[in-house]
Amino acid sequence: MKLDVRKSSSVTTNTELNQEVSDQNHLFAAIDLGSNSFHMIIARLVHGEVRVLEKMGEKVQLASGLDEHQNIAQEAQDRALECLSRFAQRLKGIEKSAVRLVATNTLRVAKNAAQFKRKIESMLEIPMEVIAGQEEARLIYLGVAHTLADDSGRRLVMDIGGGSTEFIIGERFEAKELESLHMGCVSYREQFFADGEITEVQFNKAVTAASRELLNIRDNYLRMGWQEAVGASGSIKAVANVLSELDICHDGITRSGLMELKKRVISLGNSANLDQLGVRKERLGVFPSGLAILCASFEVLAIDVMHYSDGALREGVLYDMLGRIQHEDVRERTIQALAERYHLDQNHASTVERTTMMAYQQVKRDWGLSAPYYSDLLRWAARLHEIGLTISHSQYHKHGAYLLEHSYLPGFSKQVQKNLAVLVRCHRRKLLPLLFQDYSPEEAEPMMRLTLLLRLAVLLRHERTGDVLAEFWLNVNRKQITIEFAEEWLQAHPLTLADLEMEADYLSKMEFKLEVVTRLAE
Amino acid sequence: MKLDVRKSSSVTTNTELNQEVSDQNHLFAAIDLGSNSFHMIIARLVHGEVRVLEKMGEKVQLASGLDEHQNIAQEAQDRALECLSRFAQRLKGIEKSAVRLVATNTLRVAKNAAQFKRKIESMLEIPMEVIAGQEEARLIYLGVAHTLADDSGRRLVMDIGGGSTEFIIGERFEAKELESLHMGCVSYREQFFADGEITEVQFNKAVTAASRELLNIRDNYLRMGWQEAVGASGSIKAVANVLSELDICHDGITRSGLMELKKRVISLGNSANLDQLGVRKERLGVFPSGLAILCASFEVLAIDVMHYSDGALREGVLYDMLGRIQHEDVRERTIQALAERYHLDQNHASTVERTTMMAYQQVKRDWGLSAPYYSDLLRWAARLHEIGLTISHSQYHKHGAYLLEHSYLPGFSKQVQKNLAVLVRCHRRKLLPLLFQDYSPEEAEPMMRLTLLLRLAVLLRHERTGDVLAEFWLNVNRKQITIEFAEEWLQAHPLTLADLEMEADYLSKMEFKLEVVTRLAE
Repeated sequence: MKLDVRKSSSVTTNTELNQEVSDQNHLFAAIDLGSNSFHMIIARLVHGEVRVLEKMGEKVQLASGLDEHQNIAQEAQDRALECLSRFAQRLKGIEKSAVRLVATNTLRVAKNAAQFKRKIESMLEIPMEVIAGQEEARLIYLGVAHTLADDSGRRLVMDIGGGSTEFIIGERFEAKELESLHMGCVSYREQFFADGEITEVQFNKAVTAASRELLNIRDNYLRMGWQEAVGASGSIKAVANVLSELDICHDGITRSGLMELKKRVISLGNSANLDQLGVRKERLGVFPSGLAILCASFEVLAIDVMHYSDGALREGVLYDMLGRIQHEDVRERTIQALAERYHLDQNHASTVERTTMMAYQQVKRDWGLSAPYYSDLLRWAARLHEIGLTISHSQYHKHGAYLLEHSYLPGFSKQVQKNLAVLVRCHRRKLLPLLFQDYSPEEAEPMMRLTLLLRLAVLLRHERTGDVLAEFWLNVNRKQITIEFAEEWLQAHPLTLADLEMEADYLSKMEFKLEVVTRLAE
Repeated sequence: MKLDVRKSSSVTTNTELNQEVSDQNHLFAAIDLGSNSFHMIIARLVHGEVRVLEKMGEKVQLASGLDEHQNIAQEAQDRALECLSRFAQRLKGIEKSAVRLVATNTLRVAKNAAQFKRKIESMLEIPMEVIAGQEEARLIYLGVAHTLADDSGRRLVMDIGGGSTEFIIGERFEAKELESLHMGCVSYREQFFADGEITEVQFNKAVTAASRELLNIRDNYLRMGWQEAVGASGSIKAVANVLSELDICHDGITRSGLMELKKRVISLGNSANLDQLGVRKERLGVFPSGLAILCASFEVLAIDVMHYSDGALREGVLYDMLGRIQHEDVRERTIQALAERYHLDQNHASTVERTTMMAYQQVKRDWGLSAPYYSDLLRWAARLHEIGLTISHSQYHKHGAYLLEHSYLPGFSKQVQKNLAVLVRCHRRKLLPLLFQDYSPEEAEPMMRLTLLLRLAVLLRHERTGDVLAEFWLNVNRKQITIEFAEEWLQAHPLTLADLEMEADYLSKMEFKLEVVTRLAE
């Protein structure tokens, strides 16, 4: 497979990571903690070309491990951790920074997701990213697109997961429409086929439920249209295989083939009997629910034939990671798109960004913020800090945080979105420990420090004149911050001094101490 | 004064109210519960022309009645109610529907605003509208614009209130930029001149604080520019009068005049001595703080001269009310502007609106929803129910509610915005009594009923085919709702039936009972 590298001159990239990676053995891995299965893919990058070395997958069935309080039961957690310990053995020799670990629907909804996340991260020593449904859809499309012939037509890609089903319309490597619906082969099994019994009534109920979900996207998707329909995921693969083995249809899944299969499945009466159709053992339980979702999709979206593709979320994660390294970071495009969509004053944003980075460079070592992750976060927050103005001037920092937390930001995990939202939320006005209460103490400290840097830059740019800023010297020692200006500059800017006094007051609520010092001319 | 009536053919208006008002004696009144003063204006409409009959004003100083917990103290409430009882005597003979009562900053921020509102409403039997700062600015501009020669130049209008100061740039009758800053002559008196003493240090502190606020708007306002600066409000009138009486300047307030006045005020040392400058007794306390805000505004916004205008919030409220009746309802323009700004599917919105109104017409009598207020609210909510899609498809009803609650919607009070937000919030998915907990029981009941009508229309239009909807017959009896369809129609629409079953389930959580009945062909 050849990696599609689109150059973009306006995009700054993470050269440190780039360097680090090219110094290594060029091995990469992507792990996908799905609601039904966990998957891992390991690949090597050779002269811009991706060679897949290994694929692993296990049916962990995390979604069915959710108890009535939406907690992942201990047993399911054990299954997951055992699977990951097996994956971990294969990860030896691969740089931690070259492994990405994403989690989907079950970890989006589980009440105890945070604790479980900590267990996983301490075992693998890799951060786990929980991604939103639309981001999952985008990555699936990316994975599928890399397995298909590079034609210019529009495609519909569908992926039935354990807890959600994704529908994407895209062209080449770009997704145009992304939706993630709340229906999956595991959750629908629990809802409609919990005891294994398959009746026509129950089957039709499952189809109706799926059809109701599909109505929400039908209009939009049909209007957009597509030339070919492609299915990913184990559920669709299983249906395609069975249809082929039963000689019902060979070149893809057809609508009449599905109708025929539905009849046979119902006549067998119980999912335990589906082995007679050639369904593999570990797939028996979720076969009827996956089939019902597929039937509803063919019906509501008027699909005639669908071909199966081997690409999936894990491949998408892999290609997305390679894109970040090779000068095509989708996150940079997302930030730029937001700035344009919400008509940000980009001149002012750039000024604040430069000032923020001036402050950051002076303290990153002393405050332990050298990791590229922190500078990226700070840079993005600086560029977007005024995004809430689109809603209202009053309390715009809160509106900005709302937008950043709830919008779909292609390329971002939910955690990074949340961090961006917190930085924007706290960039002006009152600052209280309460605003950082969702973080553990180790997470809160760097977030507060980043917040203070952004606040300082916004304050120093309060006048918005766009003038070259006079030099300032920043010194930090834990909670103590000293900012130094040339004496004559400070005297000529009484409003900045008033702002700094007010800021010292705000910061004292967080037990930070801000001191303003003048440097005498020599 | 001649009322400016712009015709707009696309706007539906409230013909019932229109009729009602033209049947009366054409008397109108607007009352403004400001943070410093309460004002009332009474006018008569004669052949489209407004004749002001009476103006009343009292220094109630509500803002200084706020205690340390941001509650309006009993004493201040008593002052307010006594003033309103005097206003009430003059309101006899004027239709309740021809009186508007708006409240500004102090009632925006007071913790006990809701209780105080109930006292006022039960005394006057008129709903009190708390308006946002930007709406206050819009109405002030409207009031000022009607007092000025109708030229085509751009103007800056400034109004110093007790708790906020408004800055507006506009042309003719239309405001282009609207800002309300958190500084006022009463709040700044408390902050900088609480004991009456006036020193240069304190005066400059007040000017600096105001300048810092002004920095937030300076860039934008200077970029837009204006040909003349106009000041409204008692503070600006007092300054203009004093300058004129002292022979410092006669044709408006000039920057050098302000500097001279500042010197004299400081040299007098205490606000009690300001009567020597000709300041009226009830204005003595807030004169220095108003002057400081004015000095900062001249400095930061580079104003050379400002003329005083007699127009103010109360006139603006009056003209806005007349506009609603005379086919120029700014609220309709706001709804349309939102629909365009957020790229709503307006075809679908219209379909849902028509369906909502079909349902509304069938039950308005039985459910006590006949007042035009309810049909307006429902119509607007139907048109905007998908507004949250601009943020994300997932949970878009919540995003829509957020946008409607926090955006500035010209023409709407905060309460109506809140009601719109609740309708949009509750138009799909789970429905819980919790969502109506901010309402008193008498308010909650109609809001729930309106919610159910909107939900039903959205549900019946779930398929988004745009087809003509089959007839349905709706019957309600308190919490019991029966919906009837032709049998063959319902059979042909199994997804609608499934949706209705789910809806009956949702409604049961609110103790509403939804029954679906088929009507046999005759």
